[in-house]
Amino acid sequence: MTDEQESGFTLNPRYDANGLLTAIVTDEADGAVLMVGHMNAEALAKSMASRTAVFFSRSRQRLWQKGESSGNILHIVDMRIDCDQDAIWIIARPQGPTCHTGARSCFYRRVTDSGLEPV
Amino acid sequence: MTDEQESGFTLNPRYDANGLLTAIVTDEADGAVLMVGHMNAEALAKSMASRTAVFFSRSRQRLWQKGESSGNILHIVDMRIDCDQDAIWIIARPQGPTCHTGARSCFYRRVTDSGLEPV
Repeated sequence: MTDEQESGFTLNPRYDANGLLTAIVTDEADGAVLMVGHMNAEALAKSMASRTAVFFSRSRQRLWQKGESSGNILHIVDMRIDCDQDAIWIIARPQGPTCHTGARSCFYRRVTDSGLEPV
Repeated sequence: MTDEQESGFTLNPRYDANGLLTAIVTDEADGAVLMVGHMNAEALAKSMASRTAVFFSRSRQRLWQKGESSGNILHIVDMRIDCDQDAIWIIARPQGPTCHTGARSCFYRRVTDSGLEPV
């Protein structure tokens, strides 16, 4: 990390060894975290250009337009980057449920001392 | 990922090749994303036991109690896990600013087509 990456106003992402950033998506309506994905440089560029979330699928090793099969697109309302420029926060207007399970958010279970429970 | 990991109620995290989960922290007050960190199994266990956020520092390769030097502890109000159990969402009550820069959140810059701008 350089001072410029931390305090400057140039977009200069710090990709990991696999060329990826962490991307967090929250719902503009109430701040709920909807999902976490990853973006390579191309996914970030396509997200910015289309104002819809495009990720890089680590399992399929290819670009993945969120909603490409389900239609459940994430419209980007605002995008932030963190201090060391290795994570992106997308504030989105979701078109339909975000999780592939059909849940509104991928985070549909609470972690408790005795296991998980539905939220 | 197994069906049980996705739909079950047993905590069975899917750690990456480095033994880590992604951990997102939001502010209970307004849903702002405060920071993104990583947790290994020990950090997760200590976070759950202490109800304060403990991470694994990839740069220092050691456990890191958030606030250990600054005093800016993150009190855990609620904790969620995502569908494939590789990401944790912590809803926290922050004691002071979260970012090491002194900002309330690490995400203090907006990504725009012409660069970054302060939020």
